[in-house]
Amino acid sequence: MTAPLLAAVDIGGTKTAAALVRAGAVLARTQAPTPARDGAAAVLDRAAALVRSLGGAPVAVGVGAPGLVDPATGLLTAATSSISDWSRVDVPGAVRDRLGLPGAVLNDVQAFTLGEAVHGAGRGLPTVIGVAVGTGIGGGVHVAGMLLSGRSGAAGHLGHLPVPQAVGRPCPCGATGHVEAVAAGPAVAARYAERTGDPVDLPEVVRRARAGDDAARTVLAEAGAALGTALAGLANALDPDRIVVGGGAAVPEVLAAAGPAFAAACMPVLGPVPLVPAALGADAALVGAAEAALRTLEEGRVRR
Amino acid sequence: MTAPLLAAVDIGGTKTAAALVRAGAVLARTQAPTPARDGAAAVLDRAAALVRSLGGAPVAVGVGAPGLVDPATGLLTAATSSISDWSRVDVPGAVRDRLGLPGAVLNDVQAFTLGEAVHGAGRGLPTVIGVAVGTGIGGGVHVAGMLLSGRSGAAGHLGHLPVPQAVGRPCPCGATGHVEAVAAGPAVAARYAERTGDPVDLPEVVRRARAGDDAARTVLAEAGAALGTALAGLANALDPDRIVVGGGAAVPEVLAAAGPAFAAACMPVLGPVPLVPAALGADAALVGAAEAALRTLEEGRVRR
Repeated sequence: MTAPLLAAVDIGGTKTAAALVRAGAVLARTQAPTPARDGAAAVLDRAAALVRSLGGAPVAVGVGAPGLVDPATGLLTAATSSISDWSRVDVPGAVRDRLGLPGAVLNDVQAFTLGEAVHGAGRGLPTVIGVAVGTGIGGGVHVAGMLLSGRSGAAGHLGHLPVPQAVGRPCPCGATGHVEAVAAGPAVAARYAERTGDPVDLPEVVRRARAGDDAARTVLAEAGAALGTALAGLANALDPDRIVVGGGAAVPEVLAAAGPAFAAACMPVLGPVPLVPAALGADAALVGAAEAALRTLEEGRVRR
Repeated sequence: MTAPLLAAVDIGGTKTAAALVRAGAVLARTQAPTPARDGAAAVLDRAAALVRSLGGAPVAVGVGAPGLVDPATGLLTAATSSISDWSRVDVPGAVRDRLGLPGAVLNDVQAFTLGEAVHGAGRGLPTVIGVAVGTGIGGGVHVAGMLLSGRSGAAGHLGHLPVPQAVGRPCPCGATGHVEAVAAGPAVAARYAERTGDPVDLPEVVRRARAGDDAARTVLAEAGAALGTALAGLANALDPDRIVVGGGAAVPEVLAAAGPAFAAACMPVLGPVPLVPAALGADAALVGAAEAALRTLEEGRVRR
């Protein structure tokens, strides 16, 4: 039996990507700017147009997008301000109206996790934690074929584990002391600016570190140590088969520092828990969105 | 249809309890000392004798015991030295040999979590985290009718979340900086002894705190704050419906300090996650062991 052809959409604050996916493989891909200022209907129109432009005959559409999907209602609400009017959106309804196909929706970082867990670096393993380090730090937990969603659809907010390295530092979530407050891209840049007075972005901090700048090296190493410590706590609590790390701020300098901190804080009895880089690159969320569509078709296996 | 009658056994380092359980209710209960020095066969003989002594006609036996159950083999291995020869034990095989009944085995703290999640303070909720604070800090995660076991059967080692309050303090697991190193009973007593030179146990620390001893009050408050911080990280990562706290070292002074630290470190967007005391008292692990037996009968729902 051939695996079904699925469409996948990855909606970001600046661009929207769409793909045709079969059995975890991206067969065709396109993208366009997200009309973020024009509101949810315009964003979903664009997504539908991209799917149509790919042709083929997909049997369902999976959509990864910023925000939380309420497990009770299935409505998507974004905490992000990057897209206007992105609150209590019925994405599967919009997919059905625009494309006449069944649709599934999930948080973009949960989509990344689902893609990596099922078809990427966690393939074939029962318990996989995905972590995406970027503007924030998010992730997901995939266990026994099920992506955890939690009470509010928020399971996987791995950036909000307290770590000693973040004591007293304000986190974008409103609390203090979370790993995101030292290890997300903007946090690393902010710490560099504090040390040097130089307000540069993460890529520039990385460039300077590679050129030998001690302050840049230090903030990247501290970010990695905080990330490793946080992930070790989660490894101890959940005993995963593998932790998969991706995202634009998971640069080699950060990963290099995360490894030893992770190993030091993991329970010795668990043995080494593999902490590995993501394998699907920019396609992870598309592959995960397609997997979510497949599960919706099959039996609604994306449960709380 | 009447719920089946189940037998449950809770094996501890000093005593073994057995019960008849139906639909989460303990109908009869007995206990005896655990012959811990005499090895696994003697311990299991005692457990079987206790079940027999209860009469009735249970259809399966659930056993909660110290140690980890390997998800691949079903064999129980204890990291504890409290029972001799307690390694790679086939508990279901032993139950079948001694009682002619199907058996299930799970870690004692996972049994506590399963009991509380299904029939206790977490009843009816999809995502419940159980925490038992005693000689160590353990727990479990119950999601969508499934108790997570993890790669090594170790899911739920919630005592090994890093917290700022524990930096540099050795944890019994061999690493440093985990919440167990400041909030488990022996850790609280050790911290009191460091401050005062007085080597007393946890109940005496609690007694002194209630009598107005500042050092005793401080170490209990610090234990609670560390516990609250650790559990907030887990709440942020898993978005549970409820966290249920039990165990002999979860004294009111510790819980009182845990609440504000927990609330301060939880993501505001999640709203207040209920952090509640366990409801089943000493029966939680028996009720959970019976539930594990029921699931084994039904379909092996205790999965990774």
